[in-house]
Amino acid sequence: MARWQPNASQRLVAAALDLFAERGYENTTVIDIARRADLTKSTFFRYFPDKREVLFGGDTMTGLLAKGIAAAPATATPLEAVAHVLDAVGREAFTPDRREFTARRRAVIATHPELQEREALKGLALTAALAGALQRRGVPELTARVAAELGALAMKIAFERWSDTANGDDFADLARRTLRDLQEATASC
Amino acid sequence: MARWQPNASQRLVAAALDLFAERGYENTTVIDIARRADLTKSTFFRYFPDKREVLFGGDTMTGLLAKGIAAAPATATPLEAVAHVLDAVGREAFTPDRREFTARRRAVIATHPELQEREALKGLALTAALAGALQRRGVPELTARVAAELGALAMKIAFERWSDTANGDDFADLARRTLRDLQEATASC
Repeated sequence: MARWQPNASQRLVAAALDLFAERGYENTTVIDIARRADLTKSTFFRYFPDKREVLFGGDTMTGLLAKGIAAAPATATPLEAVAHVLDAVGREAFTPDRREFTARRRAVIATHPELQEREALKGLALTAALAGALQRRGVPELTARVAAELGALAMKIAFERWSDTANGDDFADLARRTLRDLQEATASC
Repeated sequence: MARWQPNASQRLVAAALDLFAERGYENTTVIDIARRADLTKSTFFRYFPDKREVLFGGDTMTGLLAKGIAAAPATATPLEAVAHVLDAVGREAFTPDRREFTARRRAVIATHPELQEREALKGLALTAALAGALQRRGVPELTARVAAELGALAMKIAFERWSDTANGDDFADLARRTLRDLQEATASC
Protein backbone atom coordinates (compact mmCIF):
# COMPACT_ATOMS: atom_id res chain seq x y z
CA MET A 1 0.00 0.00 0.00
CA ALA A 2 1.42 3.39 -0.98
CA ARG A 3 2.49 5.71 1.82
CA TRP A 4 0.71 8.69 0.33
CA GLN A 5 -2.99 8.13 -0.19
CA PRO A 6 -4.96 10.66 -2.20
CA ASN A 7 -8.02 11.96 -0.34
CA ALA A 8 -7.40 9.58 2.55
CA SER A 9 -9.38 11.72 4.98
CA GLN A 10 -12.45 11.99 2.71
CA ARG A 11 -12.31 8.26 1.94
CA LEU A 12 -12.25 7.42 5.64
CA VAL A 13 -15.22 9.68 6.32
CA ALA A 14 -17.20 8.16 3.45
CA ALA A 15 -16.33 4.61 4.55
CA ALA A 16 -17.32 5.35 8.17
CA LEU A 17 -20.62 6.86 7.11
CA ASP A 18 -21.42 3.83 4.95
CA LEU A 19 -20.52 1.36 7.68
CA PHE A 20 -22.32 3.22 10.49
CA ALA A 21 -25.44 3.27 8.30
CA GLU A 22 -25.10 -0.39 7.23
CA ARG A 23 -24.24 -2.11 10.51
CA GLY A 24 -24.50 0.57 13.17
CA TYR A 25 -21.93 2.76 14.93
CA GLU A 26 -21.49 0.27 17.79
CA ASN A 27 -20.73 -2.63 15.44
CA THR A 28 -18.13 -0.81 13.37
CA THR A 29 -14.44 -0.72 14.33
CA VAL A 30 -11.67 1.61 13.21
CA ILE A 31 -10.14 -1.37 11.38
CA ASP A 32 -13.41 -1.92 9.49
CA ILE A 33 -13.42 1.71 8.43
CA ALA A 34 -9.79 1.69 7.31
CA ARG A 35 -10.29 -1.58 5.40
CA ARG A 36 -13.40 -0.28 3.60
CA ALA A 37 -11.41 2.81 2.57
CA ASP A 38 -8.55 0.57 1.43
CA LEU A 39 -6.26 2.16 4.01
CA THR A 40 -4.56 1.06 7.23
CA LYS A 41 -5.52 1.59 10.86
CA SER A 42 -2.44 3.75 11.35
CA THR A 43 -3.52 5.98 8.46
CA PHE A 44 -6.88 6.37 10.21
CA PHE A 45 -5.19 7.54 13.39
CA ARG A 46 -3.05 9.98 11.46
CA TYR A 47 -6.27 11.83 10.62
CA PHE A 48 -8.64 11.16 13.54
CA PRO A 49 -8.00 10.55 17.25
CA ASP A 50 -10.95 8.14 17.62
CA LYS A 51 -13.87 6.46 15.86
CA ARG A 52 -16.34 9.20 16.71
CA GLU A 53 -14.17 12.03 15.47
CA VAL A 54 -14.30 10.70 11.90
CA LEU A 55 -17.70 12.41 11.60
CA PHE A 56 -16.50 15.66 13.18
CA GLY A 57 -13.02 15.85 11.72
CA GLY A 58 -11.09 19.05 11.64
CA ASP A 59 -12.33 22.16 13.32
CA THR A 60 -12.87 23.88 9.98
CA MET A 61 -16.25 25.27 11.05
CA THR A 62 -14.91 26.99 14.17
CA GLY A 63 -12.18 28.66 12.11
CA LEU A 64 -14.65 29.61 9.38
CA LEU A 65 -16.94 31.31 11.89
CA ALA A 66 -14.18 33.28 13.58
CA LYS A 67 -12.73 34.35 10.22
CA GLY A 68 -16.18 35.33 8.92
CA ILE A 69 -16.94 37.53 11.92
CA ALA A 70 -13.55 39.22 11.66
CA ALA A 71 -14.12 39.90 7.94
CA ALA A 72 -17.52 41.58 8.42
CA PRO A 73 -17.58 45.35 7.71
CA ALA A 74 -16.50 47.43 10.72
CA THR A 75 -19.90 49.18 10.77
CA ALA A 76 -21.89 45.91 10.96
CA THR A 77 -24.08 45.35 14.02
CA PRO A 78 -23.46 42.06 15.88
CA LEU A 79 -26.31 40.33 14.01
CA GLU A 80 -25.17 41.77 10.67
CA ALA A 81 -21.74 40.29 11.36
CA VAL A 82 -23.46 36.97 12.14
CA ALA A 83 -25.39 37.17 8.85
CA HIS A 84 -22.06 37.77 7.10
CA VAL A 85 -20.79 34.50 8.62
CA LEU A 86 -23.88 32.59 7.53
CA ASP A 87 -23.10 33.60 3.93
CA ALA A 88 -19.56 32.29 4.33
CA VAL A 89 -20.86 28.99 5.74
CA GLY A 90 -23.15 28.60 2.73
CA ARG A 91 -20.33 29.47 0.34
CA GLU A 92 -17.57 27.38 1.90
CA ALA A 93 -19.13 24.56 3.92
CA PHE A 94 -22.78 23.78 3.20
CA THR A 95 -22.52 23.97 -0.58
CA PRO A 96 -25.22 22.30 -2.75
CA ASP A 97 -22.92 19.36 -3.63
CA ARG A 98 -22.50 18.60 0.10
CA ARG A 99 -26.20 18.41 0.86
CA GLU A 100 -26.66 14.67 0.38
CA PHE A 101 -23.54 13.79 2.35
CA THR A 102 -24.58 16.15 5.14
CA ALA A 103 -28.07 14.66 5.31
CA ARG A 104 -26.63 11.14 5.64
CA ARG A 105 -24.16 12.29 8.29
CA ARG A 106 -26.98 13.90 10.23
CA ALA A 107 -29.07 10.70 10.06
CA VAL A 108 -26.16 8.61 11.38
CA ILE A 109 -25.50 11.01 14.27
CA ALA A 110 -29.16 10.71 15.29
CA THR A 111 -28.71 6.94 15.77
CA HIS A 112 -26.21 7.00 18.63
CA PRO A 113 -25.96 8.96 21.91
CA GLU A 114 -22.15 9.03 21.73
CA LEU A 115 -22.34 10.83 18.41
CA GLN A 116 -25.05 13.16 19.66
CA GLU A 117 -22.90 14.05 22.68
CA ARG A 118 -19.88 14.86 20.54
CA GLU A 119 -22.12 16.95 18.29
CA ALA A 120 -23.57 18.78 21.30
CA LEU A 121 -20.09 19.70 22.55
CA LYS A 122 -19.03 20.83 19.07
CA GLY A 123 -22.15 23.01 19.00
CA LEU A 124 -21.11 24.70 22.25
CA ALA A 125 -17.63 25.28 20.81
CA LEU A 126 -19.11 26.92 17.71
CA THR A 127 -21.28 29.22 19.81
CA ALA A 128 -18.27 30.13 21.94
CA ALA A 129 -16.20 30.81 18.79
CA LEU A 130 -18.90 33.16 17.48
CA ALA A 131 -19.17 34.98 20.83
CA GLY A 132 -15.38 35.26 21.15
CA ALA A 133 -15.00 36.67 17.62
CA LEU A 134 -17.75 39.23 18.30
CA GLN A 135 -16.06 40.29 21.54
CA ARG A 136 -12.81 40.79 19.63
CA ARG A 137 -14.77 43.31 17.49
CA GLY A 138 -15.52 45.21 20.71
CA VAL A 139 -19.06 43.87 21.26
CA PRO A 140 -19.83 43.75 25.03
CA GLU A 141 -19.84 40.23 26.49
CA LEU A 142 -23.57 39.69 27.08
CA THR A 143 -24.52 41.17 23.70
CA ALA A 144 -21.92 38.96 22.04
CA ARG A 145 -23.27 35.88 23.82
CA VAL A 146 -26.88 36.64 22.84
CA ALA A 147 -25.93 37.35 19.21
CA ALA A 148 -23.88 34.13 19.15
CA GLU A 149 -26.82 32.10 20.52
CA LEU A 150 -29.17 33.60 17.93
CA GLY A 151 -26.62 32.92 15.19
CA ALA A 152 -26.09 29.34 16.35
CA LEU A 153 -29.85 28.77 16.53
CA ALA A 154 -30.30 30.22 13.03
CA MET A 155 -27.55 27.90 11.77
CA LYS A 156 -29.14 24.91 13.46
CA ILE A 157 -32.68 25.56 12.17
CA ALA A 158 -31.43 26.43 8.67
CA PHE A 159 -29.24 23.35 8.68
CA GLU A 160 -32.20 21.12 9.58
CA ARG A 161 -34.17 22.57 6.68
CA TRP A 162 -31.28 22.57 4.22
CA SER A 163 -30.17 19.00 4.92
CA ASP A 164 -33.69 17.83 4.23
CA THR A 165 -32.80 16.99 0.64
CA ALA A 166 -36.33 17.67 -0.60
CA ASN A 167 -35.55 21.35 -0.03
CA GLY A 168 -33.76 23.11 -2.89
CA ASP A 169 -32.91 26.39 -1.13
CA ASP A 170 -29.37 27.65 -0.61
CA PHE A 171 -28.08 27.36 2.92
CA ALA A 172 -27.19 31.05 3.14
CA ASP A 173 -30.69 32.13 2.02
CA LEU A 174 -32.34 29.84 4.54
CA ALA A 175 -30.01 30.93 7.32
CA ARG A 176 -30.38 34.67 6.71
CA ARG A 177 -34.17 34.31 6.57
CA THR A 178 -34.14 32.27 9.79
CA LEU A 179 -31.94 34.84 11.52
CA ARG A 180 -34.37 37.61 10.55
CA ASP A 181 -37.29 35.52 11.82
CA LEU A 182 -35.49 34.89 15.11
CA GLN A 183 -34.72 38.58 15.50
CA GLU A 184 -38.41 39.34 15.05
CA ALA A 185 -39.29 36.57 17.51
CA THR A 186 -37.12 38.21 20.19
CA ALA A 187 -39.48 41.19 20.07
CA SER A 188 -42.42 39.01 21.16
CA CYS A 189 -40.55 37.23 23.94
CA MET B 1 -25.02 -5.84 53.54
CA ALA B 2 -28.64 -4.82 53.97
CA ARG B 3 -30.85 -4.86 50.88
CA TRP B 4 -32.23 -1.42 51.54
CA GLN B 5 -29.63 1.29 51.77
CA PRO B 6 -30.62 4.72 53.03
CA ASN B 7 -29.61 7.53 50.66
CA ALA B 8 -27.82 5.08 48.40
CA SER B 9 -28.07 7.39 45.40
CA GLN B 10 -26.66 10.43 47.23
CA ARG B 11 -23.88 8.33 48.76
CA LEU B 12 -22.88 7.05 45.31
CA VAL B 13 -22.81 10.57 43.91
CA ALA B 14 -20.70 11.84 46.80
CA ALA B 15 -18.30 8.90 46.52
CA ALA B 16 -17.93 9.37 42.77
CA LEU B 17 -17.25 13.06 43.16
CA ASP B 18 -14.57 12.38 45.79
CA LEU B 19 -12.89 9.70 43.70
CA PHE B 20 -13.01 11.63 40.42
CA ALA B 21 -11.38 14.58 42.22
CA GLU B 22 -8.80 12.39 44.01
CA ARG B 23 -7.62 10.08 41.25
CA GLY B 24 -9.34 11.29 38.08
CA TYR B 25 -12.44 10.19 36.20
CA GLU B 26 -10.46 7.82 33.96
CA ASN B 27 -8.84 6.00 36.89
CA THR B 28 -12.07 5.41 38.82
CA THR B 29 -14.25 2.34 38.25
CA VAL B 30 -17.87 1.73 39.16
CA ILE B 31 -16.62 -0.85 41.69
CA ASP B 32 -14.40 1.80 43.31
CA ILE B 33 -17.38 4.14 43.61
CA ALA B 34 -19.66 1.46 45.07
CA ARG B 35 -16.95 0.37 47.55
CA ARG B 36 -16.30 3.93 48.72
CA ALA B 37 -20.04 4.36 49.31
CA ASP B 38 -20.11 1.03 51.17
CA LEU B 39 -22.49 -0.39 48.55
CA THR B 40 -22.31 -3.01 45.80
CA LYS B 41 -21.80 -2.66 42.07
CA SER B 42 -25.32 -3.96 41.45
CA THR B 43 -26.73 -1.25 43.73
CA PHE B 44 -24.83 1.29 41.62
CA PHE B 45 -26.44 0.00 38.43
CA ARG B 46 -29.87 0.09 40.06
CA TYR B 47 -29.48 3.88 40.19
CA PHE B 48 -27.23 4.78 37.24
CA PRO B 49 -26.76 3.20 33.79
CA ASP B 50 -23.03 4.06 33.61
CA LYS B 51 -20.12 5.76 35.36
CA ARG B 52 -20.72 9.11 33.74
CA GLU B 53 -24.37 9.29 34.62
CA VAL B 54 -23.62 9.34 38.35
CA LEU B 55 -22.94 13.09 37.96
CA PHE B 56 -26.08 13.69 35.88
CA GLY B 57 -28.45 11.35 37.66
CA GLY B 58 -32.15 11.58 37.22
CA ASP B 59 -33.71 14.02 34.84
CA THR B 60 -35.09 16.08 37.70
CA MET B 61 -34.06 19.37 36.07
CA THR B 62 -35.91 18.69 32.81
CA GLY B 63 -39.07 17.89 34.75
CA LEU B 64 -38.64 20.92 37.00
CA LEU B 65 -38.36 23.23 33.99
CA ALA B 66 -41.41 21.81 32.21
CA LYS B 67 -43.47 21.93 35.43
CA GLY B 68 -42.31 25.49 36.18
CA ILE B 69 -43.31 26.78 32.74
CA ALA B 70 -46.70 25.10 32.99
CA ALA B 71 -47.27 26.66 36.45
CA ALA B 72 -46.54 30.25 35.31
CA PRO B 73 -49.56 32.57 35.26
CA ALA B 74 -51.58 32.33 32.03
CA THR B 75 -50.93 36.03 31.30
CA ALA B 76 -47.12 35.70 31.56
CA THR B 77 -45.06 36.52 28.46
CA PRO B 78 -42.63 33.79 27.37
CA LEU B 79 -39.73 35.43 29.24
CA GLU B 80 -41.90 36.00 32.32
CA ALA B 81 -42.70 32.29 32.29
CA VAL B 82 -38.96 31.60 32.00
CA ALA B 83 -38.27 33.90 34.98
CA HIS B 84 -40.91 31.93 36.90
CA VAL B 85 -38.94 28.75 36.18
CA LEU B 86 -35.67 30.32 37.31
CA ASP B 87 -37.30 31.00 40.70
CA ALA B 88 -38.34 27.34 40.92
CA VAL B 89 -34.80 26.21 40.06
CA GLY B 90 -33.39 28.40 42.84
CA ARG B 91 -36.01 27.12 45.29
CA GLU B 92 -35.85 23.43 44.44
CA ALA B 93 -32.48 22.65 42.87
CA PHE B 94 -29.74 25.25 43.36
CA THR B 95 -30.43 25.89 47.03
CA PRO B 96 -27.71 27.50 49.20
CA ASP B 97 -26.85 24.17 50.88
CA ARG B 98 -26.11 22.67 47.43
CA ARG B 99 -23.67 25.36 46.37
CA GLU B 100 -20.47 23.68 47.53
CA PHE B 101 -21.44 20.30 46.10
CA THR B 102 -22.41 21.92 42.80
CA ALA B 103 -19.12 23.83 42.59
CA ARG B 104 -17.17 20.58 43.13
CA ARG B 105 -19.28 18.76 40.56
CA ARG B 106 -18.67 21.53 38.05
CA ALA B 107 -14.90 21.40 38.65
CA VAL B 108 -14.86 17.63 38.07
CA ILE B 109 -16.88 17.91 34.84
CA ALA B 110 -14.34 20.43 33.54
CA THR B 111 -11.57 17.80 33.86
CA HIS B 112 -12.84 15.29 31.31
CA PRO B 113 -14.21 15.59 27.75
CA GLU B 114 -16.59 12.64 28.28
CA LEU B 115 -18.23 14.48 31.15
CA GLN B 116 -18.31 17.74 29.19
CA GLU B 117 -20.01 15.96 26.30
CA ARG B 118 -22.67 14.44 28.51
CA GLU B 119 -23.22 17.86 30.09
CA ALA B 120 -23.50 19.48 26.64
CA LEU B 121 -26.18 16.99 25.57
CA LYS B 122 -28.06 17.49 28.84
CA GLY B 123 -27.95 21.23 28.18
CA LEU B 124 -29.58 20.73 24.77
CA ALA B 125 -32.26 18.58 26.41
CA LEU B 126 -32.99 21.31 28.97
CA THR B 127 -33.33 23.94 26.25
CA ALA B 128 -35.63 21.64 24.28
CA ALA B 129 -37.72 21.00 27.43
CA LEU B 130 -38.12 24.75 27.97
CA ALA B 131 -39.06 25.35 24.33
CA GLY B 132 -41.52 22.44 24.35
CA ALA B 133 -43.21 23.63 27.54
CA LEU B 134 -43.54 27.14 26.11
CA GLN B 135 -45.08 25.78 22.90
CA ARG B 136 -47.60 23.86 24.99
CA ARG B 137 -48.65 27.27 26.40
CA GLY B 138 -49.40 28.34 22.82
CA VAL B 139 -46.18 30.27 22.19
CA PRO B 140 -45.23 30.08 18.47
CA GLU B 141 -42.27 27.78 17.73
CA LEU B 142 -39.57 30.32 16.88
CA THR B 143 -40.51 32.59 19.79
CA ALA B 144 -40.47 29.58 22.10
CA ARG B 145 -37.03 28.55 20.84
CA VAL B 146 -35.59 32.05 21.28
CA ALA B 147 -37.08 32.41 24.78
CA ALA B 148 -35.75 28.94 25.67
CA GLU B 149 -32.23 29.85 24.46
CA LEU B 150 -32.28 33.09 26.45
CA GLY B 151 -33.54 31.20 29.51
CA ALA B 152 -30.88 28.49 29.13
CA LEU B 153 -28.17 31.12 28.68
CA ALA B 154 -29.40 32.99 31.78
CA MET B 155 -29.32 29.72 33.75
CA LYS B 156 -25.82 28.95 32.52
CA ILE B 157 -24.35 32.37 33.28
CA ALA B 158 -26.13 32.58 36.64
CA PHE B 159 -25.00 29.06 37.47
CA GLU B 160 -21.36 29.95 36.73
CA ARG B 161 -21.62 32.94 39.07
CA TRP B 162 -23.58 31.11 41.75
CA SER B 163 -21.35 28.04 41.88
CA ASP B 164 -18.38 30.29 42.42
CA THR B 165 -18.60 29.79 46.17
CA ALA B 166 -17.17 33.23 46.93
CA ASN B 167 -20.49 34.62 45.69
CA GLY B 168 -23.24 34.80 48.33
CA ASP B 169 -26.19 35.65 46.06
CA ASP B 170 -29.25 33.46 45.66
CA PHE B 171 -29.45 31.58 42.40
CA ALA B 172 -32.89 32.94 41.55
CA ASP B 173 -31.77 36.55 42.09
CA LEU B 174 -28.70 36.06 39.91
CA ALA B 175 -30.69 34.29 37.22
CA ARG B 176 -33.51 36.85 37.07
CA ARG B 177 -30.98 39.68 36.88
CA THR B 178 -29.05 37.88 34.14
CA LEU B 179 -32.24 37.24 32.17
CA ARG B 180 -33.09 40.95 32.34
CA ASP B 181 -29.56 41.85 31.21
CA LEU B 182 -29.81 39.39 28.31
CA GLN B 183 -33.17 40.82 27.29
CA GLU B 184 -31.62 44.29 27.20
CA ALA B 185 -28.66 42.93 25.26
CA THR B 186 -30.98 41.61 22.53
CA ALA B 187 -31.95 45.24 21.84
CA SER B 188 -28.34 46.11 20.92
CA CYS B 189 -27.79 43.05 18.74
